Amino acid sequence: MTKKLKVATIGGGSSYTPELIEGFIKRYDEFPLTELWLVDIEAGKEKLEIVGNLAKRMIKKAGLDIRVELSLDREEALKEADFVTTQFRVGLLEARKKDERIPLKYDVIGQETNGPGGLFKGLRTIPVILDITRDMERLCPDAWLINFTNPAGMVTEAVLRYSNIEKVVGLCNVPIGIEMGVSKLLDVDHSRIRIDFAGLNHMVYGLNVFLDGENVTEHVVEKLTDPKQTSFVKNIEGIGYDPSFIRALGVLTCPYHNYYYKHRDMLEKQQKEADEQGTRAEVVSKLEKELFELYKDDTLDIKPPQLEERGGAYYSDAAVRLITSIYNDKRDIQPVNTRNNGAIASIPDDSAVEISSVITKDGPKPIAIGDLPVAVRGLVQQIKSFERLSAEAAVTGDVDLAVLALSINPLTPSDTVAREIVDEMMEAHKDHLPQFFNK
Amino acid sequence: MTKKLKVATIGGGSSYTPELIEGFIKRYDEFPLTELWLVDIEAGKEKLEIVGNLAKRMIKKAGLDIRVELSLDREEALKEADFVTTQFRVGLLEARKKDERIPLKYDVIGQETNGPGGLFKGLRTIPVILDITRDMERLCPDAWLINFTNPAGMVTEAVLRYSNIEKVVGLCNVPIGIEMGVSKLLDVDHSRIRIDFAGLNHMVYGLNVFLDGENVTEHVVEKLTDPKQTSFVKNIEGIGYDPSFIRALGVLTCPYHNYYYKHRDMLEKQQKEADEQGTRAEVVSKLEKELFELYKDDTLDIKPPQLEERGGAYYSDAAVRLITSIYNDKRDIQPVNTRNNGAIASIPDDSAVEISSVITKDGPKPIAIGDLPVAVRGLVQQIKSFERLSAEAAVTGDVDLAVLALSINPLTPSDTVAREIVDEMMEAHKDHLPQFFNK
Amino acid sequence: MTKKLKVATIGGGSSYTPELIEGFIKRYDEFPLTELWLVDIEAGKEKLEIVGNLAKRMIKKAGLDIRVELSLDREEALKEADFVTTQFRVGLLEARKKDERIPLKYDVIGQETNGPGGLFKGLRTIPVILDITRDMERLCPDAWLINFTNPAGMVTEAVLRYSNIEKVVGLCNVPIGIEMGVSKLLDVDHSRIRIDFAGLNHMVYGLNVFLDGENVTEHVVEKLTDPKQTSFVKNIEGIGYDPSFIRALGVLTCPYHNYYYKHRDMLEKQQKEADEQGTRAEVVSKLEKELFELYKDDTLDIKPPQLEERGGAYYSDAAVRLITSIYNDKRDIQPVNTRNNGAIASIPDDSAVEISSVITKDGPKPIAIGDLPVAVRGLVQQIKSFERLSAEAAVTGDVDLAVLALSINPLTPSDTVAREIVDEMMEAHKDHLPQFFNK
Amino acid sequence: MTKKLKVATIGGGSSYTPELIEGFIKRYDEFPLTELWLVDIEAGKEKLEIVGNLAKRMIKKAGLDIRVELSLDREEALKEADFVTTQFRVGLLEARKKDERIPLKYDVIGQETNGPGGLFKGLRTIPVILDITRDMERLCPDAWLINFTNPAGMVTEAVLRYSNIEKVVGLCNVPIGIEMGVSKLLDVDHSRIRIDFAGLNHMVYGLNVFLDGENVTEHVVEKLTDPKQTSFVKNIEGIGYDPSFIRALGVLTCPYHNYYYKHRDMLEKQQKEADEQGTRAEVVSKLEKELFELYKDDTLDIKPPQLEERGGAYYSDAAVRLITSIYNDKRDIQPVNTRNNGAIASIPDDSAVEISSVITKDGPKPIAIGDLPVAVRGLVQQIKSFERLSAEAAVTGDVDLAVLALSINPLTPSDTVAREIVDEMMEAHKDHLPQFFNK
Repeated sequence: MTKKLKVATIGGGSSYTPELIEGFIKRYDEFPLTELWLVDIEAGKEKLEIVGNLAKRMIKKAGLDIRVELSLDREEALKEADFVTTQFRVGLLEARKKDERIPLKYDVIGQETNGPGGLFKGLRTIPVILDITRDMERLCPDAWLINFTNPAGMVTEAVLRYSNIEKVVGLCNVPIGIEMGVSKLLDVDHSRIRIDFAGLNHMVYGLNVFLDGENVTEHVVEKLTDPKQTSFVKNIEGIGYDPSFIRALGVLTCPYHNYYYKHRDMLEKQQKEADEQGTRAEVVSKLEKELFELYKDDTLDIKPPQLEERGGAYYSDAAVRLITSIYNDKRDIQPVNTRNNGAIASIPDDSAVEISSVITKDGPKPIAIGDLPVAVRGLVQQIKSFERLSAEAAVTGDVDLAVLALSINPLTPSDTVAREIVDEMMEAHKDHLPQFFNK
Repeated sequence: MTKKLKVATIGGGSSYTPELIEGFIKRYDEFPLTELWLVDIEAGKEKLEIVGNLAKRMIKKAGLDIRVELSLDREEALKEADFVTTQFRVGLLEARKKDERIPLKYDVIGQETNGPGGLFKGLRTIPVILDITRDMERLCPDAWLINFTNPAGMVTEAVLRYSNIEKVVGLCNVPIGIEMGVSKLLDVDHSRIRIDFAGLNHMVYGLNVFLDGENVTEHVVEKLTDPKQTSFVKNIEGIGYDPSFIRALGVLTCPYHNYYYKHRDMLEKQQKEADEQGTRAEVVSKLEKELFELYKDDTLDIKPPQLEERGGAYYSDAAVRLITSIYNDKRDIQPVNTRNNGAIASIPDDSAVEISSVITKDGPKPIAIGDLPVAVRGLVQQIKSFERLSAEAAVTGDVDLAVLALSINPLTPSDTVAREIVDEMMEAHKDHLPQFFNK
Repeated sequence: MTKKLKVATIGGGSSYTPELIEGFIKRYDEFPLTELWLVDIEAGKEKLEIVGNLAKRMIKKAGLDIRVELSLDREEALKEADFVTTQFRVGLLEARKKDERIPLKYDVIGQETNGPGGLFKGLRTIPVILDITRDMERLCPDAWLINFTNPAGMVTEAVLRYSNIEKVVGLCNVPIGIEMGVSKLLDVDHSRIRIDFAGLNHMVYGLNVFLDGENVTEHVVEKLTDPKQTSFVKNIEGIGYDPSFIRALGVLTCPYHNYYYKHRDMLEKQQKEADEQGTRAEVVSKLEKELFELYKDDTLDIKPPQLEERGGAYYSDAAVRLITSIYNDKRDIQPVNTRNNGAIASIPDDSAVEISSVITKDGPKPIAIGDLPVAVRGLVQQIKSFERLSAEAAVTGDVDLAVLALSINPLTPSDTVAREIVDEMMEAHKDHLPQFFNK
Repeated sequence: MTKKLKVATIGGGSSYTPELIEGFIKRYDEFPLTELWLVDIEAGKEKLEIVGNLAKRMIKKAGLDIRVELSLDREEALKEADFVTTQFRVGLLEARKKDERIPLKYDVIGQETNGPGGLFKGLRTIPVILDITRDMERLCPDAWLINFTNPAGMVTEAVLRYSNIEKVVGLCNVPIGIEMGVSKLLDVDHSRIRIDFAGLNHMVYGLNVFLDGENVTEHVVEKLTDPKQTSFVKNIEGIGYDPSFIRALGVLTCPYHNYYYKHRDMLEKQQKEADEQGTRAEVVSKLEKELFELYKDDTLDIKPPQLEERGGAYYSDAAVRLITSIYNDKRDIQPVNTRNNGAIASIPDDSAVEISSVITKDGPKPIAIGDLPVAVRGLVQQIKSFERLSAEAAVTGDVDLAVLALSINPLTPSDTVAREIVDEMMEAHKDHLPQFFNK
C-alpha cells in the first residue's frame, strides 16, 4: 500500500495550476503524490472546474495514480495535508488592475510587490494567509506552507511575525530566472551555474556566480556592461544599465531593481503601456481569458505552451523542486524566502529574507553571507522596513501605518501623495479590507 | 603667566567667522583662548583680511587678551594647536552654484550634502581634509579636529576611515535648531528641553523629547500634526507633513528630510527658486557680498545681525559649546558626528553617526539607543552607503564609484541620469578634482 | 505647601538603613524627601523598630521635615511612592550562612552573587522581587525601582525579562569603591577621577581611567603591577596579580574577579577563614548583632562609624546619588545595572549590564563602548549565561535549569558536583523555594 | 592525457599518513590524484622514508597511477599544488610530552588543544604555518590549505587573521566521531544521520540531530541521560554527565567538553594515568614506535588496523571527503573550521568557528544558526578569547599575552599559576620558540 502524500493548493483555480501539475508529474519519482486538493472560493468555482479538469487529464495522460480533488471547503482540504501551497489572489485580477492604475494617476509606479500595489495586495492578502495558518495549526500542524502569493516577501514576513506556524517558505521564480539568464549569457547548461543569492523578494542580488564551481562573477559582470544583456526575465524588460554602475556595483541585480535604479524610465514606460496596451493586469487578464478558453478544450492534456507567456516561467520547476527537496531531505541549495537567522547581518534575525539556503527536511537553512555589499544595504533595508510596516498595518488595520509604509517606499514622491493614494485605494479595495473598515 | 591655548581655523576667511568669534568671546571664562589663527589660501586673502580685522575689533571691544593671527601658512597655523576647526569651501561659492545648477538641468535636486551637490563637494573636500590630518599628525598630534565643512557626515566618515587621526568631531547646527524649534513649539526655555538625537548628518532624527526630564515626545508629535509647525530651521522651509505620516513615524525629522519625504515638491520648489531668485548659492553669494561690505566698515566691532540670515543660526553656540565641553571635560550631552561604536545597531561600529553623546575631554561618547525605529532604518542606511561610496570615490579617484554613489542616492531617478550628471559635474569641477584627472 | 516626595524601602529593617538615611540627609537640598516608608516582614519587626527609631532620631537631629513610617504593610508603603528601594534578604543571614557553608563542603566557593550562593540567593529573591513589581504596577506605576539586593545583576536581569516594570536600576558599591581606590592610588581627590565601567554586576571592568579628563589608564595599570595595590574594596582582600597578567589585560578588575582569576587561592582562603573565624555571613552576623545593640541606644542619632566595617562603604553615596540624579535629571555619569541596549556588542540588547550611563529623569542611558576587550569577553558572557539560566530557574522552578546554571559557572568543578550542591541546598532552603516544592 | 592533480602533505612522515593514503585510494574515482608529495624536515627523514614507502606499496596494490614523492624540499613540493594538507608536529611527540607533563606538576590539565599544552603547541606551530602560507602565496596561490595540525581552531584563526591566504579550512575528526556515536546510539547507518554542528574546534556542539531528516534531538538527548552512552570518541573516555545537566543543556557535547564540565574528575584521571601508564603522548609514542616497526615490513601494503588505536578514527574519511567535495563542488554539508561570517552571532565575523557548512569549490559556506544556546555561549566565547590571545602571542612573541591567554583559560586555577607554567614551558620549549627568545 502506498503511503498517503497530500498537497493542498489554496487558490487552485489559478491559471498557473497546470505549471504546478506539470511539476508534480515530472518529479513524481521523487515525490510520490497521492492526493492533490485544489481549493478555491465560491467566486472562483468556474475557473476551478476548468483548470481542475485539465489537471485531471494531465495526470491521467501521465499514467499516474494521483487523486485530484476540486473543493470549496478549505478545512477539508487542509486536513492532514503534508504540504500547503498558496497561490490565491484576493480580489482577483480586478484588484490588481486598481493596484496598477490608481498610483499611475499620481505619477507613481503601481507594482504588485514593493510599491503601492504591493502594499494593498499585502493588506488584502495577509489577513487571509494568517487565517489559513490558524487552520493549519489545527488541521495539519506538521505541514509545510509554501507560499507563492505575492508580495511573497511581505507575506512570509507576516507569517513569521504574526502566526504560530514556523514551517513556512516563500517562493519566487525570479532567482531561477536569473540563473537561466546567466546560463544563456555564458552559453552553458543551467546545471553548471550556481549563484549566491541574498536580499529580499523581488529585491534579490546575485552576489557571486559560479561556473562548475569556479567564481566567474567578475567575468559575468563585465559581460553585463553590454546593455543588451541585462534582461533576465521576460515580463520586465530591462532598459540597460550604465557600464560604470554595473562594474562598481559588482553584483547581479534582479529585474525588479529597474523600478528603483531606473525609477524615472520605468514610470514613463508604465504610463505609456497603460495608455497603449493596458497595464500588466489588463494584459494578463486578456491572456488568462485565452488560457481558460484553451483549458476548456477537453482534448488538451498537457500544459499549453501559451502559459509560459503569462510570466510564470520556471515556476513549476522552482515550486516542485523545493517541495521535493524538503520531502527527501535533499540538502541542495535553493534561493527561498525564509527566516534570516543572522545570515545577513544588517537584517534582523527574525525577518524574512530571500537567500540561498540548504533545503533539508527540517526546512531551509540559510547560508551566512556576512553582510550585503555597502552599495545595496540601504535599498534592501528600506524595502524591509516597507514590508514590516505594511505587514503591521495589515494586521492592525491602522491607516496611519499604511500611509507611513507607503511614504518611506522609494517609489513614492512624498508623504502627501502617499496619503492621497492610500485614501483612494482604501476606498477602491474596501470590500477586501475589513480590518480597516469594520473596526 | 597664562597657559597657551591655541585654535587654528582653516577657512578663516569665511563670512561665518564672526559667529565663531562671538562664541569664543561669550565663553571666554570657560575657554581662555590665547591664540586664534585664521588660515586661508591665497585666493581667499582679501576676505581673510576683511573678516580677520573685524575679528580683531570684536575681541578688542570685548577687552580680551586673544592674539588673532591671519595667515596663509597652514603649517605654521597648525603647529601646536589645541583645536583645529575647519570651515573651508574648496572652489568657493562658485563651485556650490554648479553643485546646485547642474543637477537641476536633469530634474534632480542639487543639495550640498546628501545629493549630487554633496557628492561633488565631498570629492573636492575630502582630499584636502585628509591633507590637513596628515599635517596635524606631524604638527599637533594631540589636537582635536572640529569639522564644520559640509558634507559634515561624509567628511567625518572619510577622516575616521582614511586618516590616522582619531580625535575628530563633525558638527552641525541642525540638531540645536530642532531643539530651538521644539522650545518655541512648547513655549519654554531651550535649557529645559533635551532631545535624544540619532541618525546621520542632515539625516538626524529626534527620537525622544524631554521637557524638564519628562518624556513629552507623544505630545510634541501630536503638536506637529499641525502643518504650520514643521519648519524648524529657517533656511529650509517645511512644506507640511501629512498628520498620519507624522503620527505613525512618531519621531522628529530634520529640515533636510524634506528632500526625501517630499522629494517631488522640493524639486519643484528648487526649480522655481532657481528660475526666480537664483539657487541658494546665488542668494548666499549676494548675501556674502553684502556681509563683506559690512565687515569692511572699521567701526563695526560686533557680529552684524544680518549674518544670521546667512543660515548659520546657533552655529557659534554649537561650535564653541562643543570645544568648551571637551576642554573642560564637561560631560554634558550634545549631538555630534562621531564614531558609532555600537550605539546604533544597524550602522557599522566604525562609521560616523550624528548622535547625542556625552562630551568628555576624551571626546564624545555616544549614548546607545539600540536601533533606529523600523521606519527610518532604511533611509539612514541608504545615505550611509552613499556617504561611504562617495568617500571611497574621493580617495581613490574612481569615477565608477562616483556613478554608483549617485545612482543609489534616493534623489537620483536612474543610473543613466547619475552618469550624465557625474560626467557634466566632473568636467565643471575639473580644477578641484586632481585625483580623477591627474592619475 | 511642599510637594510630596515618597520613598519606600523594602527590607527597611536592614542594618544598612542608617547608611541610606545619612545619604538622604546629606542630599536633602537636592532631594527634598517628605515621606520615607521602611517596610519589613513580620519576622523582621524587632529589627525594623530598632533601626527605624534610629532613623527617626537621625532625621530629627538633622532638623529635617521627613516623615518616617515603619510598616509591615508593603502595599500601603508602595502606594504612590516615587522611588522604591529594595534591600531585603529572604531567609536573612541564616540563609547566607548555608549559601557559604554548603558549597565549601564540596570544595567549592560559596559566593553570594556569582557562585552557588548567588544562585540560591537568586532563587529565593527573584520570586519576591517579581511580586513587588506586580504590586508596583498597580500602586505606583511611575515609580523607579532601585534594587540593592544581591545578586543585583541577576535580579535586574529577572526584572527586565520577567516583569512589566521598565523603570528599574540595579545598584552596587563596587564601581564607586574602585574609583575611590584609584583616587588613593593616584593620591588625588575622587572628583577628579572618571572611569569607563563595563561588564556585569560583581564582574565589572574599568576600561579607561581619566584624571581631570586625561586618559591615564596605562599609568594606572602600570602602578597596579605593584602587587600591594590591587585591593580596592575592604571586604575582599586582593591577593596580588601577576604583573604580566595585569599589563596584558590592560583594564581594571573588580575585587570579585579574584574568585575567577585566583580561583584556587580564594577557595583555600575561604576554607581557612570558615575554619578559623567563620564565613563572611557568620562574621557579618556577629557584626550585625553588635550594630543592633548600638542602634538600640536611644541617645545615638548619627550613623555609627562601626557600620562601615559591615562592607557597605560608599553605599549611601551611590544610592542617594543615583536617586538624586534621576529626580533632578542631572545627566551625570554613573555606573549602574541597566538594559544593555547595544552598548556592549557581545551581550544581548535586552540583558542587564553594569555600565557607565548618563543618569536622566528618563533613567540611565548606557554609553556605547563597542565591545569588551577580547580577554574578558568570555568570562562576562559566561556569568551572563549563569545569570540568565538562574533567573529562568527561579521563575520556572525547574531544577534541571538550576543544575545547568551551576554546572556552567566557572567556580564549579563538574556537573555532578553541581548536582550534589543543588540537591543539598535545595533541601536546606526548602522553606524559601516554594516554586520548586509546591508545584 | 590526464590532468595534473597535485597534493602536498606537510609533515608527510606522520604515522597518520597511511590513513590519508587509504582515503585517497578509496575516493580515487572522484578525486583522480596524480601526484602526492610527502614533505618533512631533515629530522623526520627516516620516518618519512618508512611511511612513504608504505604509501607507495599501498598505491601500487590499489593499481593506481599516483606518483608519490618523498621530499625535504618544501618549496618544490608546494609548487603548483592544488591542495596542501598540514599534519606536522613541531618538536614531535617529545614536545607533546612536555605539554602534558609540565602543567600536571601544577595540578593543571595539559591538553594539547584548549589548555596550556594547546597554548604552547600553538606558539610553536603558528609561526611555521604562517611561513607555509607565505610560500603558498608565491608557489601555489590557488591551492587550498587543509589543516589537521592541532590546535586546529587556533591555527585556523591565526591563518585567517595573520596571513594573506583565504583558502584555508581546519579539519577535525571529532564531529564525524559524534555522528558515528549517535548512529550507534540509534542503531542506524551513519548516512541517515545529520547533525547541525556549531562552536569551536574541540568545543563543538551538536545543536540538532536529524534521522532521515526528522529532528530527533530530544530523543537522542533523553537517551544520553543514560550515563553509559556519553562516550563518543575512543581516546577521551566520558565519565557520565548528570541527567539534569544533559536535559537542560539540550544539545550534544563533544568529548573534549569533559575537560570543562568535568574539570576536577579529568584532572584526577590524567594525574592517575600519568603516574600509572604515562601521559597520552607517552602512550602514543609507544604506539607510534610499534606502528613504524609495522610500516617497515615491506610486505605490508595496506593500512594496518592497529593505526586506528592511535586516535585518528574517521580521519581519512573526514579529510578526503572534504578535499573531494571542494574539488567536485559537491555542495554537501560537512562540519569544518572556517570563517564565521555571521553564522554564529556572538562570535566575530572574521574569527574561525567549527560549523556545519556547505562545501563548494569556492570553499565552505557556513550555515547560519542565529546564536548558540544561552548555556554554552560563555564557554565558547572564553575559548575563542583564549585562541585569539594565544595566536597573537604566537605572532608577536609577547610573553605577557601568553600569560594572559593562559590565565583566562578555564582550566587554569590562577594567573600566578599561569605565570609559573608559562615560565617553565617557555624554557622547556625554547628551541621551538624563536619569536620569544631571538627578539
